Amino acid sequence: MPVRIAELSRRSGVPVPTIKYYLREGLLPAGELTSPNQARYSDVHVHRLRLVRAMVELGGLSIAAVREVLGALDDPEKSLHKAMGTVSAAVAPPDSGSEDEVAHEQARAFVERQGWVYRPRSYAHTALVGVLTTAREVGHERFVETLDVLADAARPLAEVDLAYVLSAGSKDEALEGVVVGTVLGDAAMAAVRAMVRRELSGQLDDAEESRSGSDGNDTDPERGES
Amino acid sequence: MPVRIAELSRRSGVPVPTIKYYLREGLLPAGELTSPNQARYSDVHVHRLRLVRAMVELGGLSIAAVREVLGALDDPEKSLHKAMGTVSAAVAPPDSGSEDEVAHEQARAFVERQGWVYRPRSYAHTALVGVLTTAREVGHERFVETLDVLADAARPLAEVDLAYVLSAGSKDEALEGVVVGTVLGDAAMAAVRAMVRRELSGQLDDAEESRSGSDGNDTDPERGES
Repeated sequence: MPVRIAELSRRSGVPVPTIKYYLREGLLPAGELTSPNQARYSDVHVHRLRLVRAMVELGGLSIAAVREVLGALDDPEKSLHKAMGTVSAAVAPPDSGSEDEVAHEQARAFVERQGWVYRPRSYAHTALVGVLTTAREVGHERFVETLDVLADAARPLAEVDLAYVLSAGSKDEALEGVVVGTVLGDAAMAAVRAMVRRELSGQLDDAEESRSGSDGNDTDPERGES
Repeated sequence: MPVRIAELSRRSGVPVPTIKYYLREGLLPAGELTSPNQARYSDVHVHRLRLVRAMVELGGLSIAAVREVLGALDDPEKSLHKAMGTVSAAVAPPDSGSEDEVAHEQARAFVERQGWVYRPRSYAHTALVGVLTTAREVGHERFVETLDVLADAARPLAEVDLAYVLSAGSKDEALEGVVVGTVLGDAAMAAVRAMVRRELSGQLDDAEESRSGSDGNDTDPERGES
């Protein structure tokens, strides 16, 4: 049943001014006009708004990136493969613009070790070169040694991403699965990684005690900072 | 050898106006004044600026979050355990503020299944509840089924994070290792996950062809969007 913008806001958790901004920016189709000043919105709008909110709040996507992803969702010609590329590119950290030759070589050697196709111009590859360049700039060249562990961990994750998309009932649902799987998947992974780190971090205190003799008290480090 | 701000900019890759902004915001200690209008900066400044840049550009951290992390780095009383908590909290996606009971229960059950300590007020747990709430809101309740795979993948990553920190030569270096390992580690993971996804995504085209009979042409999906 169609609803007014106030109810659309309540159902989607997005404030009215933000909804109006999204309408102006074309992230949300216009509602059905019931008078010159009033429109009504459907379940399609509620769903689309929640999706936009997930991309902005959890994925940290810019409005331009959200628009690009929505364009992929709405394009009937778009293949899943291409949609996944669009979404991956949209959620990727921006190109830092700085890269050095050694980082390039490190990334190339990594891809070769993994037996993957070398795609030096892909967003993912460019992003990796940026990370390796930064690691070198801040004096942490040995960071590169962790890449193979990342690749081993990434394989089951990428398989889950794909299985998630492939198990969808329709192409529309599958395309949306790409977005949800990528945006929520990256956010969930960061949270879970932090949780595991926390489980293991007793080791840190032990190591530190043997180094500095600190008291290793048992307060919650994550809450102590707020 | 001390240098002027223009040279500091060149070495760090950070524009002069941005450096001035960081100085005002206290992210960078003041240089040594050589005249009322001129200061000189040391290698310490170059290093600190590169670190700030990594956090802002790769980690997507806000200025407030960077300030909090630097405070942890500069606090001689700070334990590694607490510093890791501060950094994890700083890089975590902002709390979406919306969470439902079912998502809470899903997160609790997940933590129990993993045999971890239940810390419902930690940032990581709150972030996970936020992701699960969003998943349910956008109609992707089955996303929760992927969590155990994430946990399996996160374990070796967290071990790498800790080993990286523990292998540092000094406490200062170890604290910085926490920052670098977390910020670069999450960015590198997103890139590598996208690369693996890409390697596997031929499966998507096959599935799609059998569903819709599309042509499955071989252009690069990541470059096709720019």
